Amino acid sequence: MTDPLSDVSLSELRSRQSVKWRMYEPDVLPLFVAEMDSALAPPVAAALTAAVERGDTGYPHPGRFPAAFTAFAERRYGWVVPSEPVLVADVMVGLMAALDEVCGPGDAVVVSTPAYPPFFRNLELSGRRLVSSPLKVSAEGFALDLDRLEADFASGAKAYLLCNPHNPCGLAYSRAELLAVAGLAERYGVRVVADEIHAPLTMPGVGHVPFASLDTEASALAYTAVSASKAWNLAGLKAALLVSGAACARPASARDLEEHVGHLGVLGGTAAFEEGEEWLDGLRAAIAVNAAWLGAELARRLPEVAYFPPRATYLAWLDFRALGLGDDPAEVLREKGRVALVPGLDFGAEGAGFARLNLATSPAILAEGVDRIVKAVR
Amino acid sequence: MTDPLSDVSLSELRSRQSVKWRMYEPDVLPLFVAEMDSALAPPVAAALTAAVERGDTGYPHPGRFPAAFTAFAERRYGWVVPSEPVLVADVMVGLMAALDEVCGPGDAVVVSTPAYPPFFRNLELSGRRLVSSPLKVSAEGFALDLDRLEADFASGAKAYLLCNPHNPCGLAYSRAELLAVAGLAERYGVRVVADEIHAPLTMPGVGHVPFASLDTEASALAYTAVSASKAWNLAGLKAALLVSGAACARPASARDLEEHVGHLGVLGGTAAFEEGEEWLDGLRAAIAVNAAWLGAELARRLPEVAYFPPRATYLAWLDFRALGLGDDPAEVLREKGRVALVPGLDFGAEGAGFARLNLATSPAILAEGVDRIVKAVR
Repeated sequence: MTDPLSDVSLSELRSRQSVKWRMYEPDVLPLFVAEMDSALAPPVAAALTAAVERGDTGYPHPGRFPAAFTAFAERRYGWVVPSEPVLVADVMVGLMAALDEVCGPGDAVVVSTPAYPPFFRNLELSGRRLVSSPLKVSAEGFALDLDRLEADFASGAKAYLLCNPHNPCGLAYSRAELLAVAGLAERYGVRVVADEIHAPLTMPGVGHVPFASLDTEASALAYTAVSASKAWNLAGLKAALLVSGAACARPASARDLEEHVGHLGVLGGTAAFEEGEEWLDGLRAAIAVNAAWLGAELARRLPEVAYFPPRATYLAWLDFRALGLGDDPAEVLREKGRVALVPGLDFGAEGAGFARLNLATSPAILAEGVDRIVKAVR
Repeated sequence: MTDPLSDVSLSELRSRQSVKWRMYEPDVLPLFVAEMDSALAPPVAAALTAAVERGDTGYPHPGRFPAAFTAFAERRYGWVVPSEPVLVADVMVGLMAALDEVCGPGDAVVVSTPAYPPFFRNLELSGRRLVSSPLKVSAEGFALDLDRLEADFASGAKAYLLCNPHNPCGLAYSRAELLAVAGLAERYGVRVVADEIHAPLTMPGVGHVPFASLDTEASALAYTAVSASKAWNLAGLKAALLVSGAACARPASARDLEEHVGHLGVLGGTAAFEEGEEWLDGLRAAIAVNAAWLGAELARRLPEVAYFPPRATYLAWLDFRALGLGDDPAEVLREKGRVALVPGLDFGAEGAGFARLNLATSPAILAEGVDRIVKAVR
């Protein structure tokens, strides 16, 4: 197995033009936005290079992309996808198209917080009311708070925006947890819309359970948005898929959504799902090494920072509250340590005092990041 | 000067995965959707290949793209762009964001028809009322009908969606015509939103006049959407720019719009505007050859088809009405001749009996297309 996270140097990374490498001054080490510091998976790079060579940059056609995902989902998760996935520009666009099918402006949508920042903005833009349903935390880490979720479902919510695996907390929900969610959804007539963008990125030995793969009525009524963009680092190429549950209508906007999709995202995503699993498994192993190393290193050098290693995603959700850095430790770290994390408050009120760190980098860069964090707070 | 339209063979083109080459059966010659059969301009291909090589596929950052366009516009059109252009996913997205600044749901938006099909759909989706203001036609070809435009402005329109150069009729509006439009816009309080996606593609010797470059109040109040996507064939890469006139508010949605942009579209578009002019001029010359050849060939073999060679764009708007093929000649041509054009009716009611043909292909493929058209109608 190759190690995708050790083969790109900092000077090579600094030549990238993406947000991660252009947002801050060059002396800031960027460990914030969810881009990976890997090279592309070889089959993905080959597909993109070949497309450029043949001048294949016109309007997107779904091609083999939906079928490539369907086969991947069956091999990887044992999920028999119940309908032809619809092409969308990104997972957020797919989630909003799904919400348009299940609720309208003014309706309440439950989100388990802390949560992916665009959930807040997009629900606001579409006129929905976001109901924040905080995760609970114990000595074992974060988990769904099913009692709180039931109360929030019971108070008239129309939909639950399920993020599985969970960003930023790195939870991979178990079948039992998801069955409990399905039971609550059925009891209170709440429709589930699942963001499964991080699904390929479970830690070695941890499986992903697609909500829609459960044998429940709520699953047949669920929409699921997926993409190769996170696990194969293709966020800038703009392609994702929306899967309608067996009892769901196909989104009315399906044809309009296709216009905004990136053609190279379709081609790169197809290569990823068809030929990218070996590389993915190398990546998962490398993320697991970084996630474990970070735990040991923080315990040794910064024991005040609370951290539960993720069971999925390459994100570390760090609790700085014991250090007294205020509500936005990311600002302190950036100013004093010249290292950029995502402010916890971007993920909702529960994020005060937290920051999110991106583990998808080389061990050397991660070590440099921790050095800078230590320097900033000591 | 190279000839970008003669260097790609039909078998190479058939390996492309885009809509042009995947929509119909392989025995149909596709001369419909606005993708070009050229290879990429070398500086654009180099920028994209280098990005893939360095794994630079994360979230888009504007980088040098706005400044690259600004410099191009000044060199090419003598237009001093009055504000920092805003990054958007495509020109249609930019136009709708601009309309959101100047009018609301229910308001009337004037469009010179026939018109780019997505204008109809997007105005409908956003709840605007499209007012069709037909072009006039004479022995010299199509032209703005300023009397009709005045009547439509006077009847309460809030905005005019100006398509300059005009798709599908290939008009490059003169300074005098645009000044007349500006005068009407000022008299009736109509805001101009300009689609200038085809601006780089004027015929040799024909200049493009940006509406916003005029020294009028209406120009200062105009928004302009531009892109490298049409002239350098990057439609699938999803990047465009929206320019606010000197007296305009910057679009409120600017930050949200950036999320849906393609990173490789930004990089490819930057290379195009910075280093793509020599290639562009070769392309314009090659399009002009095809446009003139088509006129001579139709006059010789199908004189019933009326055709005014475009002064800009690579589009030929063909009037088949004298042949009695019904409202949708494209369907007849595709079924009997196995050649695909865009149905004229997609461009509005004035398109009945017309079809749009794409000239951005090799002389050999264009000749094969005409053979198939002749075969279908004789």
